[in-house]
Amino acid sequence: MGGDARVMTGAERLLAACRREPVDATPVWYMRQAGGSLSRYQQLRERHSVMEIARTPELCAEVTSVAAETLGVDGAVLFADVMLPVEAMGVALELTAAGPVIAAPVRAAADVERLRPVDVASDLGFVLEAIRLVRTRLAGSAAVIGICGAPFTLAAYLIEGGPSRDQVVARAFMRREPQAWHALMEKLTVVSVAYVAAQAAAGADVIQVFDSWAGSLSAADYTEFVAPYSRRVLAAGPAGTPMVHFATGSGHLLAELAAAGGDVVGVDWRIPLGAAWATVQRASGARAIQGNLDPAVLLAGWRETQSAAHAVLDQVAGRPGHVFNLGHAAPRETDPAILRDLAAFVHESTARAVTADAARSPLPAEAATRA
Amino acid sequence: MGGDARVMTGAERLLAACRREPVDATPVWYMRQAGGSLSRYQQLRERHSVMEIARTPELCAEVTSVAAETLGVDGAVLFADVMLPVEAMGVALELTAAGPVIAAPVRAAADVERLRPVDVASDLGFVLEAIRLVRTRLAGSAAVIGICGAPFTLAAYLIEGGPSRDQVVARAFMRREPQAWHALMEKLTVVSVAYVAAQAAAGADVIQVFDSWAGSLSAADYTEFVAPYSRRVLAAGPAGTPMVHFATGSGHLLAELAAAGGDVVGVDWRIPLGAAWATVQRASGARAIQGNLDPAVLLAGWRETQSAAHAVLDQVAGRPGHVFNLGHAAPRETDPAILRDLAAFVHESTARAVTADAARSPLPAEAATRA
Repeated sequence: MGGDARVMTGAERLLAACRREPVDATPVWYMRQAGGSLSRYQQLRERHSVMEIARTPELCAEVTSVAAETLGVDGAVLFADVMLPVEAMGVALELTAAGPVIAAPVRAAADVERLRPVDVASDLGFVLEAIRLVRTRLAGSAAVIGICGAPFTLAAYLIEGGPSRDQVVARAFMRREPQAWHALMEKLTVVSVAYVAAQAAAGADVIQVFDSWAGSLSAADYTEFVAPYSRRVLAAGPAGTPMVHFATGSGHLLAELAAAGGDVVGVDWRIPLGAAWATVQRASGARAIQGNLDPAVLLAGWRETQSAAHAVLDQVAGRPGHVFNLGHAAPRETDPAILRDLAAFVHESTARAVTADAARSPLPAEAATRA
Repeated sequence: MGGDARVMTGAERLLAACRREPVDATPVWYMRQAGGSLSRYQQLRERHSVMEIARTPELCAEVTSVAAETLGVDGAVLFADVMLPVEAMGVALELTAAGPVIAAPVRAAADVERLRPVDVASDLGFVLEAIRLVRTRLAGSAAVIGICGAPFTLAAYLIEGGPSRDQVVARAFMRREPQAWHALMEKLTVVSVAYVAAQAAAGADVIQVFDSWAGSLSAADYTEFVAPYSRRVLAAGPAGTPMVHFATGSGHLLAELAAAGGDVVGVDWRIPLGAAWATVQRASGARAIQGNLDPAVLLAGWRETQSAAHAVLDQVAGRPGHVFNLGHAAPRETDPAILRDLAAFVHESTARAVTADAARSPLPAEAATRA
């Protein structure tokens, strides 16, 4: 979109879309945008581990902010691992390229009992401080996006202990030891609820709850063993803070995920966004939808990326409440230039569409005044 | 079912179900039944690698047959790795617990060109010989089930080179180098078509085509880049040999998978069998359906297994053409006693149901005569 047409800041644009309010262009952010092959991040990684960066507010804030600034996106998603609160519960873990590896996985009720409560302000204060720093630095140019793992995904990591294709050990534990399962989910939920509330209080504008592995569950199991906990985490933000509910491989679960909550439902690349929209609407009424460019196209070059982005926007078909994102995390080797061009492309394409509508449906006076 | 009620052999029962013909009880087999924790298999594994067993017809036939005999199932699925034909194409690979690892993955057109044609009779003769031995040994007590990887899954292994959560490298290659992609799929299809035909000629009663990773594709990508090749492999068996088309995480793809072929559509544990049945029927007319007990319940003990099996049979609701199986491979640590009890439970539960119907819909005279 041309400079003159831009009437909203990135934060305003993202928040408005989450609330299904009019926007001057579709907001954009990317899962795993902070990290990957951005040069500033690569420089820092030469001297610091991922966990060192995540645990040092100044480094975390820099990585988070630089990504949003460099890519020209509307949201700055915090550089943080979903396992930070689990570590604070006393679980020793190592982050590997294949994901977190836990030396002593949870395999019995006694392992659940050993998990200690978390005081978010003291145990995870570095995350809250990073949020404050990012918020100050970006000053609204992009929304600050906090993150929290959903209880099932955290439990699956804890029980599996390492990479897993379909979380069969965790799903067996769920059925073999239902009491221990519910005790574990309860503990993870209590920590997550406090973590979400604290991130919002520290200044996160939006919080995404990642239930990355929920797609390995049938809808019946999700509803019985998982949804009641996710619902509490998704309700933990204050009224003004939109929550994004994201899972992958969840085409068969979309109605149940939406029913569990989230102002915005994050959709992976496997399902056409139009169909996802209809399913969510049928299940739970109108929600904003986030997604869902196939991350694989980013590795295939700009032409493929642009054409796939066009197809995503075609699926949206001008519905209000679209947050453009990938269908899953950006591959680590993604060329940042493609992500930057993609954000500009989405802004430009959708600004034109909105401009054409503007005569019929003007932006609210408050937003227009800011232009 | 009581001994007196058993009128069909295992092979007859499985073949009849694949053809949606009347059966005296629902046939059962399990993915990865030969292997895992069966004691005879464990004994052999002390002295032989997986590939040694797979490549030695006598050992392969023994592992395959003992599993069917011990578990009391109606199908003896060949102990063979889907990567055997790929190895025959000149690709060096190592089987690890996390799956095949390929030292030199396919990443460019030149890598595709290097893949050499396969003469199934000479390069994979050990598989064909194992089929003959199993067939002779089992003599119809269980159907001999051949296996073949679908072209997409083989291509994904070749391109990824190692474990992958969502085949992003393979899916990027597909779009970045469509010509090389189609050349690769063509080569894999030619080998697979010959492999399926040869297995049928050697005496396989049924052949399952595993498209284990197809679930990472959107329906549009599946239809454009994959289905035309799968269709040829699924059409490669002779008329009398039912083909099973199986994929996981494919709830969003079921109509497209069914449209690509297979007399039997294999369904994973994530979707209720009744809904899957309706989708397949709508997409492609009546097919037999295979599935779909959640493998995780096997690790949760007999009570959970029985209750989940009951739920699967409830979903079937007496429709003709059900082959009972797991929704994915049995976990390696599954107690064989549970698998044996499960097969007996399915036979007994469904024999009662069929007996009740028998007065209205008698078995064909030929089958009844054999009793």
